[in-house]
Amino acid sequence: MADQPAISANVLAQGHKAVSIAEFFEKNKHFLGYENPQKSLLTVVREAVDNALDACEESRILPDIYIEVQKTDEKGEKFKVIIEDNGPGIVKKNLPNVFGKLLYGSKFHRLRQSRGQQGIGISGAVLYSQLTSGKPTKIYSRIGDGKVHIFELKIDTLKNEPEILSDTEVFGSGHGVRIEMEVRGKYMRGKQSIPEYVQQTAIMNPFCSLTLVEPDGTKTKYERGVNELPAEPKEIQPHPHGIDFGIMLKMMKMTNARNLNGFLTTEFSRVGSTSANEICMKAGIDPKLSPKSLTRDEAEKLYDAMQNTPLQSPPTDCLSPVGEEAIKAGIKKELKPEFIVAVTRTPSVYQGIPFQIEVGIGYGGTLEVEGNAQILRFANRVPLLYEQSGCALTKAVIETDWKRYGIQQTGDSIPRGPVVFSINMVAVKVPFTSEGKEAVKAYPEISKEVKLALQEAGRQLGLYLGKKRRAHEQSSKKVMFQRYSLEVVEALHGLTGVPIEEIEPKFAVVLEERLGDLEGELEELQDEDYLKSLKDGTSDDDDEPADDDDDGGEE
Amino acid sequence: MADQPAISANVLAQGHKAVSIAEFFEKNKHFLGYENPQKSLLTVVREAVDNALDACEESRILPDIYIEVQKTDEKGEKFKVIIEDNGPGIVKKNLPNVFGKLLYGSKFHRLRQSRGQQGIGISGAVLYSQLTSGKPTKIYSRIGDGKVHIFELKIDTLKNEPEILSDTEVFGSGHGVRIEMEVRGKYMRGKQSIPEYVQQTAIMNPFCSLTLVEPDGTKTKYERGVNELPAEPKEIQPHPHGIDFGIMLKMMKMTNARNLNGFLTTEFSRVGSTSANEICMKAGIDPKLSPKSLTRDEAEKLYDAMQNTPLQSPPTDCLSPVGEEAIKAGIKKELKPEFIVAVTRTPSVYQGIPFQIEVGIGYGGTLEVEGNAQILRFANRVPLLYEQSGCALTKAVIETDWKRYGIQQTGDSIPRGPVVFSINMVAVKVPFTSEGKEAVKAYPEISKEVKLALQEAGRQLGLYLGKKRRAHEQSSKKVMFQRYSLEVVEALHGLTGVPIEEIEPKFAVVLEERLGDLEGELEELQDEDYLKSLKDGTSDDDDEPADDDDDGGEE
Repeated sequence: MADQPAISANVLAQGHKAVSIAEFFEKNKHFLGYENPQKSLLTVVREAVDNALDACEESRILPDIYIEVQKTDEKGEKFKVIIEDNGPGIVKKNLPNVFGKLLYGSKFHRLRQSRGQQGIGISGAVLYSQLTSGKPTKIYSRIGDGKVHIFELKIDTLKNEPEILSDTEVFGSGHGVRIEMEVRGKYMRGKQSIPEYVQQTAIMNPFCSLTLVEPDGTKTKYERGVNELPAEPKEIQPHPHGIDFGIMLKMMKMTNARNLNGFLTTEFSRVGSTSANEICMKAGIDPKLSPKSLTRDEAEKLYDAMQNTPLQSPPTDCLSPVGEEAIKAGIKKELKPEFIVAVTRTPSVYQGIPFQIEVGIGYGGTLEVEGNAQILRFANRVPLLYEQSGCALTKAVIETDWKRYGIQQTGDSIPRGPVVFSINMVAVKVPFTSEGKEAVKAYPEISKEVKLALQEAGRQLGLYLGKKRRAHEQSSKKVMFQRYSLEVVEALHGLTGVPIEEIEPKFAVVLEERLGDLEGELEELQDEDYLKSLKDGTSDDDDEPADDDDDGGEE
Repeated sequence: MADQPAISANVLAQGHKAVSIAEFFEKNKHFLGYENPQKSLLTVVREAVDNALDACEESRILPDIYIEVQKTDEKGEKFKVIIEDNGPGIVKKNLPNVFGKLLYGSKFHRLRQSRGQQGIGISGAVLYSQLTSGKPTKIYSRIGDGKVHIFELKIDTLKNEPEILSDTEVFGSGHGVRIEMEVRGKYMRGKQSIPEYVQQTAIMNPFCSLTLVEPDGTKTKYERGVNELPAEPKEIQPHPHGIDFGIMLKMMKMTNARNLNGFLTTEFSRVGSTSANEICMKAGIDPKLSPKSLTRDEAEKLYDAMQNTPLQSPPTDCLSPVGEEAIKAGIKKELKPEFIVAVTRTPSVYQGIPFQIEVGIGYGGTLEVEGNAQILRFANRVPLLYEQSGCALTKAVIETDWKRYGIQQTGDSIPRGPVVFSINMVAVKVPFTSEGKEAVKAYPEISKEVKLALQEAGRQLGLYLGKKRRAHEQSSKKVMFQRYSLEVVEALHGLTGVPIEEIEPKFAVVLEERLGDLEGELEELQDEDYLKSLKDGTSDDDDEPADDDDDGGEE
């Protein structure tokens, strides 16, 4: 062991410096989903659409989103992305920071269900745009004051501050935001593509109208399926069982409450005055003390007492699930399976955060018979197209025993056959595996809820497939009897002397009675609403992108 | 569609504010690996050990790391973590920022192989410590100037700045850093545990001596296996084919080069004067122009020309692989399989970043026969214990056809049987899936290299297993012949009249010649070094943690 290092601490000290968060993500853009040209182009679109949908929903506007991707070079490596919404617009004062500063926004400090959470998404897209095109992002914002504010801006990455290149104002009515960004990328159709993202968004957000104009000019419009916004999710206070000690310390410093009882009852959910006093008593601390007067050790006692006091689960009016009917309608409309089942679980809690799992399973019809089942994953209604294998939602599918429900599966792998799974996690905060929001962390509480939802849906599918199998067997029997019916009728005629013309119709009736109306029996397994919706049809079926295999399929 | 939103832009504007990076990770600590108590405790240890190893290697000191985890409460939920190294120490001026400011460090802006890259790791651990214990981190630093600087600090998360609680100085010789952190966690042994992390670190860093003291007082010492540090990795310039346009624009603004030719040749790797002129010519720009004088459009032409000019791959002296022999030695020492093969591929490139894949496969011996094969993953010699399924290294194992090498595998899943895979990715920059550095992104170039390495090693394993199978068959034959040898000898005696005593030994010789020395044949398949190392033995075998199944195993 050397006693004097060859290179000393003083030498090593020279390279140290601070890095801005913008520089950090500039060099680690894959954390934000900018990993390769195809995925990056999708991420830019997704961030802008997520923001647009959040803004519309927050101001209770039925969203109308326009998405256009233009090719700007011959090789197809450079694009202009345009996203326009009918949301409330963004006030001039906030606009530069919303687009030109990472970690800025309204959603970070509150506990409220929304697509965006981090204040990184749209500024990350601006960052990617300038990183690959060197050009500013152009934003048009109307907030209903008769003007259009037009900004061109970049991010000064050394400082993580907006750099405004132009700032003009023209007359214009209405409200909404239009963004134009130039980026390098790759436009594809099929798996993990922008069209797939838009289609899945339409499936899970039926209250939204979406228009996609592709680089070749193809225009696809997804009409609104319902004319009502989902229930407005409420903002909640943190639950005592889901909070870190350090956060509680911070809250105690910042609170306006004059005593501990007031602090606990106003700044947390599910703590009434009785519970607050109980917590203080357990900690051996007077509930009339000021929160600011506690020492660290006293605060820790309070925290530990809080963790060991039974409290009601957090309120669940902060959650806005899609609902079983809407899930079925979405799957039916876009994928046309022969059988659909949907399950929306009651809310549950992970680390003090309320969440809810919704599952839909479609079987047969136009679904591909060969290969793996499809898994559509959603977080607060946003389609997750990447990182499938690292996602808790996929893992729950893999770890469920599908053979018991009549679905083909080898060990712990994705089941095979004409099956589609749609899984939506609704939460005040979704625990993504990275800032790119592509996969859900496998917290035990979440995995358990997804599995329970899948099992519940799986049992119904299993019943259907069981009856279907028996119906098929009976059908074979019937065909066999029919094949020999002439011989049987002739034999009966020979034995009894009754004329063949008399025996034949009676025999047919017996056959029908005993081996029955197989189609009817299968139909009974479909629930009424599904059958009704199949009969109703929908007018917007023409707008969906052409399917390879679109020749009917409803048996 | 409402013409006036129910909630206007002005109302929505009120909640907007900026968030510091420390607040961001405080609320998203799972991005840094602080996901549950067990993993969090491991992450704290790992960040401190990674830093210690990097510091030692950079100053060319053979590392001597001491790790102690103390239980500080009855329930086993609170711990004190102590990490001490014999590195160069940290100068007083930098120390508060190194530990008390996220995104600060020496490794972010350079292209040089090291464990840490982001300037988040150790300050993230400080953040987790104060978040769960409310207590400051205590740091003792000696830089060989006869003093010990002792700091107690926290992070002011609103500002992302260090908050120094105490700052003292005492006499003390030598150099190194000692960190003491109090955290909530859970101490476990077995899979994904601190002992497993330390053992795997010992496997891949044989030049390092490690001591682990567990909460129950158990002390395990991993002695150094070699007394030489790996070759010092060189720092390199970025390669033109791996740089974003926006970064080039920034470099052009900041460069001291007076003309484009100088800019291209000094600030990039693998651009000589001829290539620089060729690039400028293709772009239609005079190489004598100042980089600062170019317009965005000119710069883009230059960038595109750069991408379309063939250049040598980046230099590879920036990489410091472990090497085939050391990999085998590590696996042998800790896992004792009957057969080992190792492959270190030649360097390759992803997105302009040089990297290298090393693979070891062990088979049989003390390895578990039932269940899935073990996969040990490393990034620049750091064990990756979490997010296995989302990792490119695992995916490459799954997507390789192991049946052709005689290993059991069902479809695309982890092979089964007594097999261990060890995969190390060496790179100037490893593309992790998140800041927690748990899994490698599946870039196509990386996946391809891992698969090629696995195939190369797999072929050698296949040869061994093939011969082993044939040897087994032959052995059965030999046993059968031996069983009937008396009858054959008697028959020969009857036919020829030669005495049995004469025939018997001759017959045994023939049997031996034809069905041979099976063990010898199998041994030939092991390469000499492995056999030699098995015979040498090692003195530190006693120091490893007790194995469930440690009863020999070398067949």
